[in-house]
Amino acid sequence: MLSSRIRQMQESPIRKLVPLADQAKKNGKTVFHLNIGQPDLKTPDVFMNSINQSNLDVISYTHSEGIIDLRNAMAAFFNRDNLDISSENITITNGGSEAIIFALNTVCDPGDHIIIPEPYYANYNGFAEMTGVKIDGIVSPVDRGYHLPDIIEFEKVLKPNTRAILISNPCNPTGVVYTNDELQLLVDWALKNHLVIISDEVYRNIAFDERENLSLLAFKEIHNNLIVIESVSKRFSACGARIGAVISKIPNLQQNILKAAQSRLCPPYLEQLGSVALYHLPQTFHESVKEEYEQRRNIVFDALSQVKGLKISKPEGALYVFVKTDINAEDFAKYLLQDFHIDNKTVMVAPGSGFYQDKSLGINSLRIAYVLNTNELREAMDIFVKGYHSFKETII
Amino acid sequence: MLSSRIRQMQESPIRKLVPLADQAKKNGKTVFHLNIGQPDLKTPDVFMNSINQSNLDVISYTHSEGIIDLRNAMAAFFNRDNLDISSENITITNGGSEAIIFALNTVCDPGDHIIIPEPYYANYNGFAEMTGVKIDGIVSPVDRGYHLPDIIEFEKVLKPNTRAILISNPCNPTGVVYTNDELQLLVDWALKNHLVIISDEVYRNIAFDERENLSLLAFKEIHNNLIVIESVSKRFSACGARIGAVISKIPNLQQNILKAAQSRLCPPYLEQLGSVALYHLPQTFHESVKEEYEQRRNIVFDALSQVKGLKISKPEGALYVFVKTDINAEDFAKYLLQDFHIDNKTVMVAPGSGFYQDKSLGINSLRIAYVLNTNELREAMDIFVKGYHSFKETII
Repeated sequence: MLSSRIRQMQESPIRKLVPLADQAKKNGKTVFHLNIGQPDLKTPDVFMNSINQSNLDVISYTHSEGIIDLRNAMAAFFNRDNLDISSENITITNGGSEAIIFALNTVCDPGDHIIIPEPYYANYNGFAEMTGVKIDGIVSPVDRGYHLPDIIEFEKVLKPNTRAILISNPCNPTGVVYTNDELQLLVDWALKNHLVIISDEVYRNIAFDERENLSLLAFKEIHNNLIVIESVSKRFSACGARIGAVISKIPNLQQNILKAAQSRLCPPYLEQLGSVALYHLPQTFHESVKEEYEQRRNIVFDALSQVKGLKISKPEGALYVFVKTDINAEDFAKYLLQDFHIDNKTVMVAPGSGFYQDKSLGINSLRIAYVLNTNELREAMDIFVKGYHSFKETII
Repeated sequence: MLSSRIRQMQESPIRKLVPLADQAKKNGKTVFHLNIGQPDLKTPDVFMNSINQSNLDVISYTHSEGIIDLRNAMAAFFNRDNLDISSENITITNGGSEAIIFALNTVCDPGDHIIIPEPYYANYNGFAEMTGVKIDGIVSPVDRGYHLPDIIEFEKVLKPNTRAILISNPCNPTGVVYTNDELQLLVDWALKNHLVIISDEVYRNIAFDERENLSLLAFKEIHNNLIVIESVSKRFSACGARIGAVISKIPNLQQNILKAAQSRLCPPYLEQLGSVALYHLPQTFHESVKEEYEQRRNIVFDALSQVKGLKISKPEGALYVFVKTDINAEDFAKYLLQDFHIDNKTVMVAPGSGFYQDKSLGINSLRIAYVLNTNELREAMDIFVKGYHSFKETII
């Protein structure tokens, strides 16, 4: 009864261990979730206030492309950085997830290829499977801080039916922030080869050490070949709102995406209303979010860089660190949930295989999301490090 | 830059005339919307109350399959009719739309076929295009009240890679409610041919004249071949909530759908909370909704059955009547928005072509949704009928 495509689809590496975590909790353990990019930060009050002030009698469909107030608010937010966006360049989606699905459907036919530097956000695999798109991964090694591979590596996998390059910047899962120079190289190469760049910028401006983090929209010459993915999830700690967007100035793209958008009718109305207020929040809000994550990055980096056997690159942005280990990371993640605790507390991390096209490349890797307050994070990292040493003893 | 599949995708026939309606409104006209199944009924207060009472600090991701309270509440709702459903048979989705996309992905590989009696809900075309599934439409004529075609018609289009039959019952756009006998014939034929039935039951129990309207879940023998589509949209007048579900007892189906569900993370959290309360509403609520639509059905039927040149079948359920005319329905729909009004008021209807696989079959048809209160509906139908006569004069 079941299709090949659904049977072959991979489980989310971030969520597949959820049953083990549920079991650990049933057994009375506290589980610190470092596996999923679910920030603990309070969703700003303006979100619910804005929903309640609207006093809707009927929770009706909205325009398929999203309510105009939200598209205007989002455009204004992008234009704080002089990115020259209008509401007409924006389609509101069910989270960044649907934005990527729409983008892939729009630039690729089934069987077409896209290039992604790896490790990459694991759910890109699911989106590609759903849309029949083939991924060519090219490795960004930890030794160069997960920065972009040389152009020669892109050249090697280029095919006649390669349609796009997909990057996330700042990068989930590596925390790298691409420099302006490497973005320029990528832009030039994409233009030369008539490729679209799908730039997942949902962590934009969560960039540390006063690093600049340009949107690719700042490179005007790529506007006719660029799709930017946006989301309220991390920017405003509103992951469950499921509000994202496809932002693009490619001619006729938004009119075509509208057809796909119409067929699923609209994004959720209440969360669109709440998100209008989020995009009006002042820059000081965004600064404080960035500072909070920078503190957390420091805690995680300090804890991990002490440990012999773990190899990391200091995260430059986003909420993640990608750790190369000398053990089987999935076994270790299961061990932490099933067999290890300190004072009845343990941690959950995401095994790294799912973040690669070639799963074998990630067997020893794992991703940590620093989404807990600094006190909890210190405790969680202490448990993680002790758990690592303890696991290594079990396998000797 | 744009893929063939997105360029070839059809526009929603229900929404494609929206720009003309927007223009009419800008010109100061009132437009009665009979084009879209967007009820005017107030969303029950328990929806917002339940959201506000939850007092969430963080609008976080939920489990990908939906929150357990909602899955339990929905199961209990189905079990009011002894349908033997548990939370494990339910995955919560972004509206009925995503539920159908998940169902098609799960039972069909790209290129596989499904059979749908036509006219059918226009967005099924979009879902099929997105999932690479081919539709074989078989005509349900108005003369037999849009009831199911004879089994011989199903046999005629059956192919080696036909995987499923998709029906909506009560039917959008025809308003037919299938009898228990015809459902039994369909069940028997599906089982004989190892096909899945995808039964879109989002209008279930909006059935008039004390008609019985069984869920296909009442036919236990089809449980291993059945997917039911559910949604809060029409049942609770909460279209903008975007909460639906895939309900199925097919072995391993929910575990496989979970992979697709995980890749898009989760449905919107607030609306899941609100929907829990909706599914706890008493039967008296559902009775009153049905009675309201039955009154409206009577108004629309009375108005249309007077008119020479229009051919209809008295709707047995749902919120729609599908009208065969002797004119070009899209031209007429445009005429109503652009060139016609009574006291500066006009109506918007959905042209019928998009509700057929073979577009030519629907050129003279249109769909009317009776989603206005009885007073407005009387006025809107009066405008519609006068507009019809006026349009006929223009084309003589």
